[in-house]
Amino acid sequence: MPNPHLHRIRVRYAESDQMGLAHHGAYVGWLEEARIEWLRANGLSYRELEVQGVLMPVTELALDYRRPLRFDDQVELTTSAVLVGPTRVAFTTVLRVAGAGEVTAEGRVTIACVGRDGRPKRLPAEVAATVGTGPEVR
Amino acid sequence: MPNPHLHRIRVRYAESDQMGLAHHGAYVGWLEEARIEWLRANGLSYRELEVQGVLMPVTELALDYRRPLRFDDQVELTTSAVLVGPTRVAFTTVLRVAGAGEVTAEGRVTIACVGRDGRPKRLPAEVAATVGTGPEVR
Amino acid sequence: MPNPHLHRIRVRYAESDQMGLAHHGAYVGWLEEARIEWLRANGLSYRELEVQGVLMPVTELALDYRRPLRFDDQVELTTSAVLVGPTRVAFTTVLRVAGAGEVTAEGRVTIACVGRDGRPKRLPAEVAATVGTGPEVR
Amino acid sequence: MPNPHLHRIRVRYAESDQMGLAHHGAYVGWLEEARIEWLRANGLSYRELEVQGVLMPVTELALDYRRPLRFDDQVELTTSAVLVGPTRVAFTTVLRVAGAGEVTAEGRVTIACVGRDGRPKRLPAEVAATVGTGPEVR
Repeated sequence: MPNPHLHRIRVRYAESDQMGLAHHGAYVGWLEEARIEWLRANGLSYRELEVQGVLMPVTELALDYRRPLRFDDQVELTTSAVLVGPTRVAFTTVLRVAGAGEVTAEGRVTIACVGRDGRPKRLPAEVAATVGTGPEVR
Repeated sequence: MPNPHLHRIRVRYAESDQMGLAHHGAYVGWLEEARIEWLRANGLSYRELEVQGVLMPVTELALDYRRPLRFDDQVELTTSAVLVGPTRVAFTTVLRVAGAGEVTAEGRVTIACVGRDGRPKRLPAEVAATVGTGPEVR
Repeated sequence: MPNPHLHRIRVRYAESDQMGLAHHGAYVGWLEEARIEWLRANGLSYRELEVQGVLMPVTELALDYRRPLRFDDQVELTTSAVLVGPTRVAFTTVLRVAGAGEVTAEGRVTIACVGRDGRPKRLPAEVAATVGTGPEVR
Repeated sequence: MPNPHLHRIRVRYAESDQMGLAHHGAYVGWLEEARIEWLRANGLSYRELEVQGVLMPVTELALDYRRPLRFDDQVELTTSAVLVGPTRVAFTTVLRVAGAGEVTAEGRVTIACVGRDGRPKRLPAEVAATVGTGPEVR
């Protein structure tokens, strides 16, 4: 993967469900946190981007759950990003239990860059320069 | 209780936890939904109030959990409201499993009326006219 | 779509984000609620299935967001299900603002039927009889 | 406060609301995370306690919101615990923006120690030894 960034989270108790597993919906917030930390690691503050009128709503989300996660598990999220158009970026995140080699889940989120008016907006140059431009490697 | 309004919800699977109970944090969203439906039942749209620059952030929250709730339980929330100052309203909500008499939980939420600038703002007349003004009955 | 069931939700305030939209993660809980109501409409209680040792963890999730939803919007979720193997069911849910014709989002969730031990388990006959068996219509 | 433990979180985007603030419900999950880290810092794993049949459901929750928090804020949660009966512990958590002196919020959560059967259970000796026994200092 190009430009990968590693972020760690720990599964919260509130994120468990009565099956005894991390609820599948919790992963969506973790992927978002991982994207924001990917931006920060690349010198970009998503908070600042929004202040400047650059919003990044999610247009597509896909998650593949391979092995369960549980409350208190420490999870490593490895995220990379590629341009998929002048105003879109696809983030791919691979999840592993810390210290384990096996992939427990994989997520792919596409964001569109839009202005306050909701209209497509070219990605800021500093974002475009950071994301990969080659073929997306999954 | 003055001006009570009854709202029904069903416990979502995502709101369960690995103890097999409705997670205590889920109640906070239900109380909020019950407040918004209380306003609607009294002819007020919280969405419209915000458009008009009237925000109602929560300043205090208290929840007393007496009996557990579980996934798929149907819950009746009975909500009433009293003025607790020129810019504050306290909402009290009693939760019962539908069809059962016993109270499973009770919540009390105080909201402050503020403007877009975050400063206290007198409650709109139509809100003040609706909430009880007598002593708060719990 | 085969065997469609219509379920209605209203976007909660807690589900809004600072973009002023329903957060993309909130949809995951709505899809789950819609699946559980699909089962109920077909005479099946997911709560009861779990008591009988039939669990349905999510193995794949895909969401396509086309138009934004906002706090207080009433949303219609039309859900159908098809068998995608002896132990898997794919649920497709189309979301529309109540009364509007345009699709605002579409989700597809695959569940695996497993036992308490986490091992694949043949779908209960009454579930298999209910889900469509023809080619999945999206 | 006796036995304080400091835990840090960062406000997630999903935890913001359309007021542009951290939603008041998000604090409940942070307090829970802070309690679990308080236990860990004192040599106790809540995951292990549950495996041993020691559950700690919340019986009371109170939150006092003084100043708003926003997406991306780093928050310091200082938590202490005192016994409030043979089977109950009260955790008090003070929240501050990292590096700032002012308290932004304060929470108090009471947990009951129960067994798998839901009946009150004496706190494990190692938990009782760790929590303060003097008068609760708030």
